[in-house]
Amino acid sequence: MLEFDKKFEPKIGKKGKEFIENSFSKLKKEKDSESVGYYTLPNTTTTLFKQIEDYIQNNEDLQNNRIKNVAIIGIGGSSLGTKAIDSILRFKNHSDINLLFLENGDPININYTLQNVDKNDTIFIVISKSGTTIETTSIFKYILDRYKIDLDSNETSKLIAITDEDSPLWQFASKYNISKFSIPKNVGGRFSVLSAVGLVPLAIVGYDIKAIISGALKFEEEFFARKQNHLLTKAYYYYKKGKDKPINVLFSYASSFSYFNQWYVQLWGESLGKFDKKNKKVGLTPVGLVGSVDQHSFLQLVIQGPEDKTVTFIKINDFETDIKIPDIRLENITGVNYINNHTFGELINAQCMATLESVSEAGIPVDLITVNNLSEANLGCLIYYYELLTSCVGVMFDINTYDQPGVEFGKKKLVKKFVKEA
Amino acid sequence: MLEFDKKFEPKIGKKGKEFIENSFSKLKKEKDSESVGYYTLPNTTTTLFKQIEDYIQNNEDLQNNRIKNVAIIGIGGSSLGTKAIDSILRFKNHSDINLLFLENGDPININYTLQNVDKNDTIFIVISKSGTTIETTSIFKYILDRYKIDLDSNETSKLIAITDEDSPLWQFASKYNISKFSIPKNVGGRFSVLSAVGLVPLAIVGYDIKAIISGALKFEEEFFARKQNHLLTKAYYYYKKGKDKPINVLFSYASSFSYFNQWYVQLWGESLGKFDKKNKKVGLTPVGLVGSVDQHSFLQLVIQGPEDKTVTFIKINDFETDIKIPDIRLENITGVNYINNHTFGELINAQCMATLESVSEAGIPVDLITVNNLSEANLGCLIYYYELLTSCVGVMFDINTYDQPGVEFGKKKLVKKFVKEA
Repeated sequence: MLEFDKKFEPKIGKKGKEFIENSFSKLKKEKDSESVGYYTLPNTTTTLFKQIEDYIQNNEDLQNNRIKNVAIIGIGGSSLGTKAIDSILRFKNHSDINLLFLENGDPININYTLQNVDKNDTIFIVISKSGTTIETTSIFKYILDRYKIDLDSNETSKLIAITDEDSPLWQFASKYNISKFSIPKNVGGRFSVLSAVGLVPLAIVGYDIKAIISGALKFEEEFFARKQNHLLTKAYYYYKKGKDKPINVLFSYASSFSYFNQWYVQLWGESLGKFDKKNKKVGLTPVGLVGSVDQHSFLQLVIQGPEDKTVTFIKINDFETDIKIPDIRLENITGVNYINNHTFGELINAQCMATLESVSEAGIPVDLITVNNLSEANLGCLIYYYELLTSCVGVMFDINTYDQPGVEFGKKKLVKKFVKEA
Repeated sequence: MLEFDKKFEPKIGKKGKEFIENSFSKLKKEKDSESVGYYTLPNTTTTLFKQIEDYIQNNEDLQNNRIKNVAIIGIGGSSLGTKAIDSILRFKNHSDINLLFLENGDPININYTLQNVDKNDTIFIVISKSGTTIETTSIFKYILDRYKIDLDSNETSKLIAITDEDSPLWQFASKYNISKFSIPKNVGGRFSVLSAVGLVPLAIVGYDIKAIISGALKFEEEFFARKQNHLLTKAYYYYKKGKDKPINVLFSYASSFSYFNQWYVQLWGESLGKFDKKNKKVGLTPVGLVGSVDQHSFLQLVIQGPEDKTVTFIKINDFETDIKIPDIRLENITGVNYINNHTFGELINAQCMATLESVSEAGIPVDLITVNNLSEANLGCLIYYYELLTSCVGVMFDINTYDQPGVEFGKKKLVKKFVKEA
């Protein structure tokens, strides 16, 4: 499924070993105490699978292939993970249903996304953990108005709400008999892709959500059975070197990984950028790159700029629908004939390895994650791996990995701009 | 057009003033000596305008509306600027011609991009400064093969080459009578969007390229007439604070700016990440964010993470096609009613200002660029502003802003992976 190679290798003395063991115990405690809920999402989805199956089987529009679009109204953790999985696996999805995302309150973007949307062939899924996200509720109101959706009619069958139990959105959905799925209270937004947040829309548009979960479950079991200890060592490296190497680049060699990179950026940045218990600002800065495109952009800075970065490469072993560079010799353009008769998959993977080697030779720490092929199970595994890695670094920094107090100030300022007396 | 506000304010003593004046003189010298060509692109386009006009008027397929797609085969500086302008201005473009981008040698992406492309209604533009970029030549060969384009027939009228005069691609195009446009030798890839690289495809799909150039020209004239001195002060701030604030965030409050951010990332990262003349690694790390989306992601790290960042906000004053949040009061979801009857444009701009204020109050240096509305002229101006800013910081760091020696190592390694004796 996933292979981990060219690992970061910190020096680990006796104290370091103890620190790592101690961190593992803390992770295990977070998991067992159920104070942090995402750890056990892969174990607890049986009920959710059943709910989703029931929803799909009872939805006449879906059963009769009348649905063309599923529009997700949600931002941040409510959309990024789903977008990542859909964009990576779309090439092998044979469903005719598009997944659309209404995230930002940008009027041009809202108009553009909705231009071909008809309410009769669309399911709108409103996703908000708190149930009161300003972008999400505003866009939802706009949709109700634009499509004249009557909340007191059976048109509410075109709506789904995914939110915390008893949130304002939950209560609203109950009142109008809108289908609803709950987000466990102990699962934070950026750790929620393997909950109803990701699984409901992904199942509706035809992805094998059981395979996603099985991939995550496999990694969960192996890690807690101490069969994936490299993750602990890597987290320790980030922790120890955080001051010298505060920028962590994820260099994914596949165009479709750009949203996965964004998911990683949210997970890493928002989880680890915190005041620690000594009231000191700590954090690691994530950067997402796509290869080979960003070899023509950010790479120069990695190789000859300040040595403040680590780079993790992601390589796709088998692109499955690979195509060949034909044996055409273009007059005058002779220097590139060596690639003829090779596949594009071979080219991009050779570029990945050549870049990895040249970055490493420039003295920059690198490691490599090889994904055998793009499948639900492998993505589930990769997602869970990154969630665990984030938790582990958070435990080592001794911070609260799961909150985001820094963004509250801006929210209050926003209200004051509209409500004079606020 | 553009307003610059909440500027970074470095302390500038007598020496600092001299240093800034000295840097300005160096920029002017680069410009006047024509060693760096992008400075004068806005002054030298009359001939190019004529060539492009002739091309369009003599292309029967274009004149008879038979073209549905313009596919750009190019990577890095050969595509990013064009993609940035097209994605931002697409909402007011009434042409029916799509602009497609074949950048990466990712087989899934190539297949996906070409799925609805028919050679009869498509113009393929091959763009490569050197004329030998491996991704570009490989994809070009694939297209020749996939669409059975006969180079000895009049089918070459569907091809355009944009490259340095006398490059291998230039010679190839001459041999087969393929329309060609030259990139001035003294204009680097990442500074080339205002040359034929950007202007040819943008004109074909209906953008007002004269307005783009006029916006750039206005900023050029004002800057060199010393009417935009804030740019020099800002560059000085980056230079002086580079060690403490090595990460420069561009936080653009419009969904369509994500490719503009990528263009900025290439320009900033690849230009400024260099060995300086004392053989020391210098450089500034660019990060592109989109508001309000990334308030739910990277913002927490900015506010409570290490104080190693500066943030520039971009705000669009008038979205032109703005829409209103209707006055709907949703049962139970009452906390957000304050936004009813306001427009989405007002919401996103208030979010921009609320975030700017809270970032600033957290002790992070911020500044603000306000773009009055999204137009060709304003984008030309913004592009030229960022190019000048990059040059100015480069002059202060005393580096070669215009080369990229660090990426050559990987290219050599790549060849060795395929050619045993290389």
